Amino acid sequence: MLNRVRSAVAHLVSSGGSSPPRPKSPDLTNATSAPLAAAPETPKSPPARPGSGSGASAKTVEARASFSRPTFLQLSPGGLRRADDHAGRAVQSPPDRGRRLPWSTGYAEVINAGKSRHNEDQACCEVVYVEGRRSVTGAPREPNQDQGLCFYYWGLFDGHAGGGAAEMASRLLHRHIREQLKDLVEILQDPSPPPLCLPCTSGTPDSSDSSHLIGPQSCWSSQKEVTHESLVVGAIENAFQLMDEQMARERERRGHQVEGGCCALVVVYLLGKVYVANAGDSRAIIVRNGEIIPMSREFTPETERQRLQLLGFLKPELLGGEFTHLEFPRRVQPKELGQKMLYRDQNMTGWAYKKIELEDLRFPLVCGEGKKARVMATIGVTRGLGDHNLKVCSSTLPIKPFLSCFPEVRVYDLTQYEHCPDDVLVLGTDGLWDVTSDCEVAATVDRVLSAYEPNDPSRYTALAQALVLGARGTPRDRGWRLPNNKLGSGDDISVFVIPLGGPGSYS
Amino acid sequence: MLNRVRSAVAHLVSSGGSSPPRPKSPDLTNATSAPLAAAPETPKSPPARPGSGSGASAKTVEARASFSRPTFLQLSPGGLRRADDHAGRAVQSPPDRGRRLPWSTGYAEVINAGKSRHNEDQACCEVVYVEGRRSVTGAPREPNQDQGLCFYYWGLFDGHAGGGAAEMASRLLHRHIREQLKDLVEILQDPSPPPLCLPCTSGTPDSSDSSHLIGPQSCWSSQKEVTHESLVVGAIENAFQLMDEQMARERERRGHQVEGGCCALVVVYLLGKVYVANAGDSRAIIVRNGEIIPMSREFTPETERQRLQLLGFLKPELLGGEFTHLEFPRRVQPKELGQKMLYRDQNMTGWAYKKIELEDLRFPLVCGEGKKARVMATIGVTRGLGDHNLKVCSSTLPIKPFLSCFPEVRVYDLTQYEHCPDDVLVLGTDGLWDVTSDCEVAATVDRVLSAYEPNDPSRYTALAQALVLGARGTPRDRGWRLPNNKLGSGDDISVFVIPLGGPGSYS
Repeated sequence: MLNRVRSAVAHLVSSGGSSPPRPKSPDLTNATSAPLAAAPETPKSPPARPGSGSGASAKTVEARASFSRPTFLQLSPGGLRRADDHAGRAVQSPPDRGRRLPWSTGYAEVINAGKSRHNEDQACCEVVYVEGRRSVTGAPREPNQDQGLCFYYWGLFDGHAGGGAAEMASRLLHRHIREQLKDLVEILQDPSPPPLCLPCTSGTPDSSDSSHLIGPQSCWSSQKEVTHESLVVGAIENAFQLMDEQMARERERRGHQVEGGCCALVVVYLLGKVYVANAGDSRAIIVRNGEIIPMSREFTPETERQRLQLLGFLKPELLGGEFTHLEFPRRVQPKELGQKMLYRDQNMTGWAYKKIELEDLRFPLVCGEGKKARVMATIGVTRGLGDHNLKVCSSTLPIKPFLSCFPEVRVYDLTQYEHCPDDVLVLGTDGLWDVTSDCEVAATVDRVLSAYEPNDPSRYTALAQALVLGARGTPRDRGWRLPNNKLGSGDDISVFVIPLGGPGSYS
Repeated sequence: MLNRVRSAVAHLVSSGGSSPPRPKSPDLTNATSAPLAAAPETPKSPPARPGSGSGASAKTVEARASFSRPTFLQLSPGGLRRADDHAGRAVQSPPDRGRRLPWSTGYAEVINAGKSRHNEDQACCEVVYVEGRRSVTGAPREPNQDQGLCFYYWGLFDGHAGGGAAEMASRLLHRHIREQLKDLVEILQDPSPPPLCLPCTSGTPDSSDSSHLIGPQSCWSSQKEVTHESLVVGAIENAFQLMDEQMARERERRGHQVEGGCCALVVVYLLGKVYVANAGDSRAIIVRNGEIIPMSREFTPETERQRLQLLGFLKPELLGGEFTHLEFPRRVQPKELGQKMLYRDQNMTGWAYKKIELEDLRFPLVCGEGKKARVMATIGVTRGLGDHNLKVCSSTLPIKPFLSCFPEVRVYDLTQYEHCPDDVLVLGTDGLWDVTSDCEVAATVDRVLSAYEPNDPSRYTALAQALVLGARGTPRDRGWRLPNNKLGSGDDISVFVIPLGGPGSYS
């Protein structure tokens, strides 16, 4: 087994050795990137159209069956081919003419330098209308009340081991969020605190009396106050889980068409607040008056080491007798048995020496550093959607139990600050952040936006393009190079620039 | 079972209802506070004496068998009685004459207002010499090399359900740290990076060649760099665990004498760096030039909810069929079966509605809010030492599996900033922080220290006394009151004030 995993690691290391992008799975097959041509839900609706109920034409679905890009790019067959060209790596943005993205959002993307056949990033930008379900609190409806809610939605999905999961998530995750919010429409529009308990039947005479919803004071001294905001957070969290479960079902039903997994970085704007939900290694920052406000953190084998080790410790059967939950600073050699080596377990942030025993020779659950860190020698991100069939290389040991589909959600209250047109929320897949620091992004924000009139809505697209170009670099000797001659990102790169005080339509 | 736990909660709520202090266990018996009159290790040595090898006299041990306070208070039998007086609640500090605490550390404490028979806080302040073990790296020793290391040590221990655990930790934890550091003396004094692997035998000819310690480059692309600092962190972490294991053994052997548990907040100063290790709800802050730098965080059922819920989810047998790992904002009533109630599971930070099922009627693993939050309706802190025999009230269900003995360690580099005599590290048990904010502490630091000459070493004791007095208040109508007429802390209160740039002896 050791040799088997070793070769898997050797494969990973050598394939990722010459360029920064991280191979997230050993099986980077291209055959699995076909989208779901016949998903039960309708495909993603055109941008900026509330409701997202209608679908694209059958022709569009067919065209996307071989290679799909976000519909808001409005790519012609020729444009689609150019977007798929690893040699040219042309930056793609929505056309300058015609309908803009909501809030005049800027978007740009570029395909990888050959890492995978197609661009495995996907993106989505929608305005979603949520119609409330029947009165959930049992209160009688007023006419003109409960008109439903609108939320603005942006999503970046960075696929690995095929584009199926990213494609599926880009078409469906916002619908899961909508479904979760349907029960909350009435509650979110009511300024009083959310009811802790809802009646099981609505419309019956006694259920309009909300006093019984609380029930008699229990033995607890008090009840917790739950905010509207935390209901939206809970709705997004559960939507991620339901999306993940749907992927598992689809995979059962349709096999390789939904192979792979994806990181998901999602923004929801609802009732004055921006919710940023991240599961994976994409990143979101706000640049406000030059200041950087982190809106996400990355979930990797290094940042989630203790969670992974705890799971391996509590459920050793998940390690299959092949892995140890302990971390060592390098691989233990059989001849070192009986010597003392540094280690960390699930409880430690520091290191200590331990005498090496036979089971320490097993491959460590978490190994490697930085972009080469891996869970079970296989995957470099620890949260995301999909990956239901991901196995340790040449083994039947499943990796999914160690991955979490739950995002961390951060909330930013847009009403607490008077934003100017230069204040933006920047979302990027790791292709951007692998070679660009937060400060460099902030500098580019300043440089590009100051070259445009504040009310020019094309400035955010120009900024997204500048960020993608800056991370891609230009083709020079031995690969794509940045101006400082360092390697540019050979990964897929996708960027949203969301203006927080610009000429958006969110007033 | 439900009624059983309910009455436990009712008991807790009513006993803690009139004053802020949190009862950490339902069994606040005083019979268990007897110290370890005949511990295998020698009792705590006098303050500021390197080595801590010799013990107190048999007479001292006898005197402490009924009620013990830190030896550095140098209390006479009469002083001991006054310190034990709940009515007067006299503030105790080391005598102004004679040997000062290291670094001119200030200390003050006061007993509770009647919550328990004796003061269940304990404190320790030591200078500890660590003699290195035989050359661990196998390198031949130079004469005058490996002279050993000194560390400065401060510890606050807040006992619950008896004073035995706090007493034992105050006498022994620094020795466990010393034991852990013994293997590191040579390594910490060597400026080169720590060896990742040590030979099993030392002094053999080939072991002086350190190249073989690293071993051949494995299939990993690199090895992790481990810092000296992270070795000290690891040593402290493991010392906490060994202390906890020793308590378990002693309890097996000696029963009620080591009953109970304690929070532990410990500071180690070693080689220019301050390590603050916290397991429990005590708190440490640095006040530097008026600025507040948090040096710890509290571990409670609220802050550790997701860790506790995950454990209950992964190991449902620990819930004994009596508890549910889900959290609800209030107790679910049987008549609410089938209705929808807000809940959170181990993955969620937000709330969502779920249909109430039969097993949701079980008592929640985590319930209550603020100072009344509890694990299994029993204990209000989730990290600390001891509690090996703590059971759910009127049940055999053990609570220890949910408690962690591991501290969070934060490191502060004392050499990175030129400290002035007014810069201090303040440690306090929750008796201080329950009624005093960080800002109020900073204001008291400024007020008291500015009233003394910068080189007056008694200023730090005066500050510790002012902080304790400010949290205790004065006896007025219905209890101890603060100047704003709010209730003062009825809990034991203990405070260390450690000057970071004062007239200390650490140059």
